[in-house]
Amino acid sequence: MLAQFNLRVISSILGVLMAMNAGFMLLCIPVSIIYSESSWISFLYSGLATSFLGALLWYFGRSKKDNTLKKKDGYFIVSLGWVLMSFCGSFPYLISGAIPNLTNAFFETISGYSTTGATILTDIEALDKGILFWRSLTQWIGGMGIIVLTVAILPILGIGGMQLFVAEAPGITPDKMQPRIKETAKRLWFIYLGLTLLETLLLFIGGMDFYDAINHSLTTMATGGFSTKNDSIAHFQSPFIQYVIIFFMFLAGTSFTLNYFLVKRNFKKVWQNEEFRYYISFVFLFTITISGVLFFRNYSSNIEESFRDSLFQVVSVVTTTGYITKDYTSFGAFIAAVFFMLMFIGGSAGSTAGGVKIVRHIVLLKNSFLELKRQLHPSAIIPVRFNGHAVKREITFKVLAFMIIYLAIFATGTVVVSALGVDFISSLGATATCLGNIGPGIGSVGPVDNFFHLPQAAKWFLSFIMLLGRLELFTVLILFAPSFWEKA
Amino acid sequence: MLAQFNLRVISSILGVLMAMNAGFMLLCIPVSIIYSESSWISFLYSGLATSFLGALLWYFGRSKKDNTLKKKDGYFIVSLGWVLMSFCGSFPYLISGAIPNLTNAFFETISGYSTTGATILTDIEALDKGILFWRSLTQWIGGMGIIVLTVAILPILGIGGMQLFVAEAPGITPDKMQPRIKETAKRLWFIYLGLTLLETLLLFIGGMDFYDAINHSLTTMATGGFSTKNDSIAHFQSPFIQYVIIFFMFLAGTSFTLNYFLVKRNFKKVWQNEEFRYYISFVFLFTITISGVLFFRNYSSNIEESFRDSLFQVVSVVTTTGYITKDYTSFGAFIAAVFFMLMFIGGSAGSTAGGVKIVRHIVLLKNSFLELKRQLHPSAIIPVRFNGHAVKREITFKVLAFMIIYLAIFATGTVVVSALGVDFISSLGATATCLGNIGPGIGSVGPVDNFFHLPQAAKWFLSFIMLLGRLELFTVLILFAPSFWEKA
Repeated sequence: MLAQFNLRVISSILGVLMAMNAGFMLLCIPVSIIYSESSWISFLYSGLATSFLGALLWYFGRSKKDNTLKKKDGYFIVSLGWVLMSFCGSFPYLISGAIPNLTNAFFETISGYSTTGATILTDIEALDKGILFWRSLTQWIGGMGIIVLTVAILPILGIGGMQLFVAEAPGITPDKMQPRIKETAKRLWFIYLGLTLLETLLLFIGGMDFYDAINHSLTTMATGGFSTKNDSIAHFQSPFIQYVIIFFMFLAGTSFTLNYFLVKRNFKKVWQNEEFRYYISFVFLFTITISGVLFFRNYSSNIEESFRDSLFQVVSVVTTTGYITKDYTSFGAFIAAVFFMLMFIGGSAGSTAGGVKIVRHIVLLKNSFLELKRQLHPSAIIPVRFNGHAVKREITFKVLAFMIIYLAIFATGTVVVSALGVDFISSLGATATCLGNIGPGIGSVGPVDNFFHLPQAAKWFLSFIMLLGRLELFTVLILFAPSFWEKA
Repeated sequence: MLAQFNLRVISSILGVLMAMNAGFMLLCIPVSIIYSESSWISFLYSGLATSFLGALLWYFGRSKKDNTLKKKDGYFIVSLGWVLMSFCGSFPYLISGAIPNLTNAFFETISGYSTTGATILTDIEALDKGILFWRSLTQWIGGMGIIVLTVAILPILGIGGMQLFVAEAPGITPDKMQPRIKETAKRLWFIYLGLTLLETLLLFIGGMDFYDAINHSLTTMATGGFSTKNDSIAHFQSPFIQYVIIFFMFLAGTSFTLNYFLVKRNFKKVWQNEEFRYYISFVFLFTITISGVLFFRNYSSNIEESFRDSLFQVVSVVTTTGYITKDYTSFGAFIAAVFFMLMFIGGSAGSTAGGVKIVRHIVLLKNSFLELKRQLHPSAIIPVRFNGHAVKREITFKVLAFMIIYLAIFATGTVVVSALGVDFISSLGATATCLGNIGPGIGSVGPVDNFFHLPQAAKWFLSFIMLLGRLELFTVLILFAPSFWEKA
């Protein structure tokens, strides 16, 4: 059963991942030392333990006999990699005693690597600065992982219509990717790093201290949403800081291929991208609607504030970041309902954002209208058009199936969470926000609350849901299919 | 624009429908007279007004030049017919003063004809017996309409996978239906009538008075759920009566073609039907789960009662009837979550039940698992199998698209209802229950509540949602498509 997998190569790749993870842990030592915190020792121990595990894995896989990987190996590496990273990533929390409980530590860590941002911390500011830096870093590492996943792995696996994105990305062709994959990944990582540094600089100029600036930049670019402050971005009342964060959240929710074109000043290429146009329109439409409500119902003191509050929260939820400047559940049923539905949108494909993704919604939306037309002309072939080309019926089919499975997991997840002792509305909110990798939900896990009070079993289950959502469902689900384990 | 439709034939058919409707109204006169109620006069006026309208429509369409109807005419007749029936059907409420407000009267009437069962009445028992009989009758008429719709119209229109049901129904073939359509419809109506009379008899034997027995039989067989009692079937504590109602709700949620085979004692044919097997399994599975919870958490006093309460509520929601013996929202978050999700199941295709329908869920469920298999074998053609045959990819596609549109309407509807001033959870509940033609929802429109307190605009909007759900979405939506109005 296991013989069909290239376990040696899988093991050595996981070993390299663990070594990288250990490296990032050691990076936190200077932070702790600068702030004279005792937590530096826990990073040393964690780094050593993770390195040791990595070395073991690498040693097991050291043979160079057969380096070829099959598709099935890919699913294995990605899912197992994310779980192992999260397992080791919780060492600093556990060893330092910042989060002494294993369930909570694992939840917080996978919430980091999956760039979700749901937290079990009740008093974030009470933690060491070194530990909070590690917490922000897990999201940034997760974001890096997602970029390489989208560039290198998803195109081969071809999950639920991601082909549509691939077709538009330069240097990524599903068939012959190997030669250019490293180059493309490097290029996009460079942009990821560059934007992170640029945001840090701008936040610092805006008056944030350097530590907060770097932390928030790390979690913005990953669309993660962990903050070093208990009341998230509401802590920073400067409009400049809030607009900077909005701008970078928006970029992080944009395909990194487009960000590359932006850097290259190829604006025409960006504007020609249909997903980008829909993305901007969605954000614009919802912001205008919500600011209208906030302003006319006097929830905000002036037009600029209602616009900024709306824009911030809309961009935060659509890009699945999850930062908060205002509690959107406190503005009446309509605003709450809109934000709940926005949780099912998700950012652009090829960004660090989670969720369903805008490209899929475009296909779903267009197809729904075309179904009416097809009803009237049953023999005509009427394909969905995207970026000026007809989308293969096969791909539209896969997008439809993806959305159905996404919603089925949401529905089943809600029932499971409620069975574990959570009230109905919080079960809806927790499942939607974890599956969409957003962070805050509705009910008792709303924007001003946290996940601490949930039952242990619910935390483990929601950890699994975050993983499912982050890895486009199929990468994880397929491991549970009997045919996966049959010899090909 | 209108010239492409055969307006004369459309008009004459609507005229005949109005005449039938008037006939049913006159049928209520003896009921009022028996109980010495003054409302008999309102039925006379309503009947006369409706006949007059019918005569006008018939007169306008009397020419016999061209009797052919095109597909587009079919959509027109069905949607307009249901709205016109509901418009005239509200006359008795308005004229008698039982429901003096037009919004409320229209809501109650379309809730009847769409076999939903959502009510704006706060004290049902205060109404005249004649009026309540008319209320039950609207559902029974709606059920008759649905049977003829499924037999005669939907197969031609071929909406969202209904072909799957048609393929299994004898005497219904999409191509050459005309010769046998009248015969099939008559046969199924006869079974509908027969089962209604049989249930009346059994309820009467069980101790219900004759008036209540006939009313509840009318609304059971239509899977409507209007009751003559304020606390629905909870009023009748006799287990015999409750089991009789469960049995007939279950039959009403079964395809009437299968009911025909049952009457013919062709049990093999019934059991061979895959939708029927899933239907029974769904009901069984949920009943066992829920009775376990009710029993072990001491919500019911003994095993039989927890079984009966669970079975009753599960069958009531799955068949979209909406009768109540226990408030399922009072048994904790898990039970509430399960019932909320059950609202999205729906009965069998070809029954009087509304909702998504079990046949579609079978296709969706199987296809979701097959997608994992297809992921591993991208070049293999792996079709969904139903009733032993491979389902055409085209039909699976239509089922997926139907479900997406259904859920998109649910999501948008929830936002609209909340924008009209209803709290979030009640907006979810009201939209789900009206779209699924069930009756009671969750929140402030839960099983022991009613729709009276909703804002006027929400009532009109939900009336539209009931119509959408009842007519398999497309029949109504297509009227809003620009291509519908273009000359073919």
